[in-house]
Amino acid sequence: MISLAELQRRIDTGELSADAAVARSLDAIRAKDEAIGAFVCHADHLRAANAGPLRGIAVGIKDIMDTAEFPTEMGSPIYRGFRPRADAAVVMMLKQAGASIVGKTTTTAFASIDPTPTLNPHNHGHTPGGSSSGSAAAVAAGMIPLALGTQTGGSVIRPASFCGVAAIKPSYRLLLTVGVKCYSWTLDTVGLFAAGVDDVARGLSAMTGRPELRLPATIQTPRFGIVAQDFAGAPEASGEQALRIAARAADKAGASVRALDLPQIVAEAWSAQPVVQEFEAHRALAWEYREHYDAMAPLLRAKLDETRDTPPAAYDAAIETANRARQALEQVFNEVDVLLTLSAPGAAPEGLGSTGDARYNRLWTLMGVPCVNVPAFVAEGNLPVGVQVIARYGADAKALAAARFVEQALSTAD
Amino acid sequence: MISLAELQRRIDTGELSADAAVARSLDAIRAKDEAIGAFVCHADHLRAANAGPLRGIAVGIKDIMDTAEFPTEMGSPIYRGFRPRADAAVVMMLKQAGASIVGKTTTTAFASIDPTPTLNPHNHGHTPGGSSSGSAAAVAAGMIPLALGTQTGGSVIRPASFCGVAAIKPSYRLLLTVGVKCYSWTLDTVGLFAAGVDDVARGLSAMTGRPELRLPATIQTPRFGIVAQDFAGAPEASGEQALRIAARAADKAGASVRALDLPQIVAEAWSAQPVVQEFEAHRALAWEYREHYDAMAPLLRAKLDETRDTPPAAYDAAIETANRARQALEQVFNEVDVLLTLSAPGAAPEGLGSTGDARYNRLWTLMGVPCVNVPAFVAEGNLPVGVQVIARYGADAKALAAARFVEQALSTAD
Repeated sequence: MISLAELQRRIDTGELSADAAVARSLDAIRAKDEAIGAFVCHADHLRAANAGPLRGIAVGIKDIMDTAEFPTEMGSPIYRGFRPRADAAVVMMLKQAGASIVGKTTTTAFASIDPTPTLNPHNHGHTPGGSSSGSAAAVAAGMIPLALGTQTGGSVIRPASFCGVAAIKPSYRLLLTVGVKCYSWTLDTVGLFAAGVDDVARGLSAMTGRPELRLPATIQTPRFGIVAQDFAGAPEASGEQALRIAARAADKAGASVRALDLPQIVAEAWSAQPVVQEFEAHRALAWEYREHYDAMAPLLRAKLDETRDTPPAAYDAAIETANRARQALEQVFNEVDVLLTLSAPGAAPEGLGSTGDARYNRLWTLMGVPCVNVPAFVAEGNLPVGVQVIARYGADAKALAAARFVEQALSTAD
Repeated sequence: MISLAELQRRIDTGELSADAAVARSLDAIRAKDEAIGAFVCHADHLRAANAGPLRGIAVGIKDIMDTAEFPTEMGSPIYRGFRPRADAAVVMMLKQAGASIVGKTTTTAFASIDPTPTLNPHNHGHTPGGSSSGSAAAVAAGMIPLALGTQTGGSVIRPASFCGVAAIKPSYRLLLTVGVKCYSWTLDTVGLFAAGVDDVARGLSAMTGRPELRLPATIQTPRFGIVAQDFAGAPEASGEQALRIAARAADKAGASVRALDLPQIVAEAWSAQPVVQEFEAHRALAWEYREHYDAMAPLLRAKLDETRDTPPAAYDAAIETANRARQALEQVFNEVDVLLTLSAPGAAPEGLGSTGDARYNRLWTLMGVPCVNVPAFVAEGNLPVGVQVIARYGADAKALAAARFVEQALSTAD
């Protein structure tokens, strides 16, 4: 993989020009993407900016995000050849930080569950996960140092886990969804993929202009609460093993690590998340569903068919449950600094029939709290499995620092 | 003006066909809009739907809302001829309720403060207000029974007041901004204009599929708190008179009416609103500001120039103030059912140099609470002046019922 931090260092010292750094990513895409299929389209040539913390950094943009210079096709034939007038806000944040937009990465249709043809770089017989399939795969395959995705259920953390890359789903609205195709306005969250936690932190800090999001020179030892998410069912053996390995490494590195039960209302919020998600999707995708029903991706269409009669009162109740759960979860973070839990049930499923299961992600998206994936374990078939570190709403810096602690603990434990 | 309720009655009884109802609006636009300039574009012919509560209702859509069948130009040459692929969510909500989209109404550039050429139907020498200029003017001039606008500062309630029409800025997110050009994601709120409060309630209920938003057969007498908004400065004589007249009418109709001071934190939130608005605008309009600086409308551009260096910490503090103020305001509604306050400093200003002042609106947009404008008084120059009725977050039905109470009290007092 390409380390963003390492690229920055070499560009800063003049060892590598920003233009040459970008050119290397273009070369890597040309060399590798035919086998992986992470990009929908990409630039032929690209000049780097000569200023900004992300100069020389080639970034892939999930193809539900508006770009003025590339088509934006939402993973659906309904948007074939569509050219937005403007760049999405997050694309502009990247440009203003000096990044070069290298191309658009594959997305399941409207960031839902119908798989793309993208392959998992670690094992071509497996899915890279979704819906941010191309962004996770492009970073994992070493084509680009940074990519943007979105998470509504588990579309950032799950593909990051399956592809063995670091990723953050930041606090709700730290990054904006202006110019990003909406699935659910309560849930949709823009996230970042990069090689390691430090790389993710540098990307997020540069985009937002918030220096406090960079990792501190010395990372304080966090208090971890291990959360099994029993309400979401049992994990697979590989998922369980990843969590056990990560918890043990943190403990060995001197952290306080203890099992934690979440309040009952939080488990109820887990059940409320699909109600919020699909009720909002019916409104956000009303034009596509009503005017282009036949062209809708089949799994998404079936999900919308199933949920079309949800009454507003059921939605209101789900939102109310989520609000109460957010307050209850705040209290949990008075006892521990961060939670450590599964990023996915296990390693990436075989084949391209499914992008995997978001059941260990969807609660956290609804809570709006920052989640960071850290690769923890490599299962049979060379398949990575991650864990996620979760902090309270707004404590993105703390989530990143604790994730870095886990990442270091795991590398020491190796 | 065209009453939506009356049209519905005539269509229901078969006295008027839905097609004929829509055709009348098209005729009215052809007859009147040359003098007013409320529309950017409109349909030549239009078939009505044959089902749905809004069949036969011709609706004007503010031109920052995406429409698949009309260009969407944002009031700016930067978007000249722009064709979105899909309809905005609120446009689809109208269509699904059977409404006919008749055309696009004028908007200040990106719903900011640079006036459009639209004239106030009551006095062509005055502004109709903004930013939803065309929607307010088209309803006021009797061209259409329903129109959509948006409010970020005071862009629904203020033009409604200036044009003498009823309008609601509903609770934040009761109507969605998916497919609506963003200025500030914390503030942008879609609202409705119609002839009277009952008409507005019918429109909102039909769009959202929430029957509880229709006016009840019997309206309970509300407890009113009169709010002067001293933190926003003193009103003009006509604004003060409108509020006095409305309060007196409510009192005479048997309501409890008392002056109310708002908690200090709420006044602080009033000062925080512009910080939130412009910080977010810099991100939402980053592409336009950076790539098309010269083509930006001059007043908007100057405002963005002034505020470009606001640090994230100032924004975070403003959001924190808003959150605390929302909690404090909730308590106020334990003492009274609704607030009654100024919709604008006074009647519409002369000329087209300004769309008027949002200082009595911006607090309520930040609080996310439902606001309903009721015309209360006609000032010198045939210029209407309204008052607004405000309920707690989520109590849109209560705001509408109390506004109807004021509307009836005023008509009885006449």
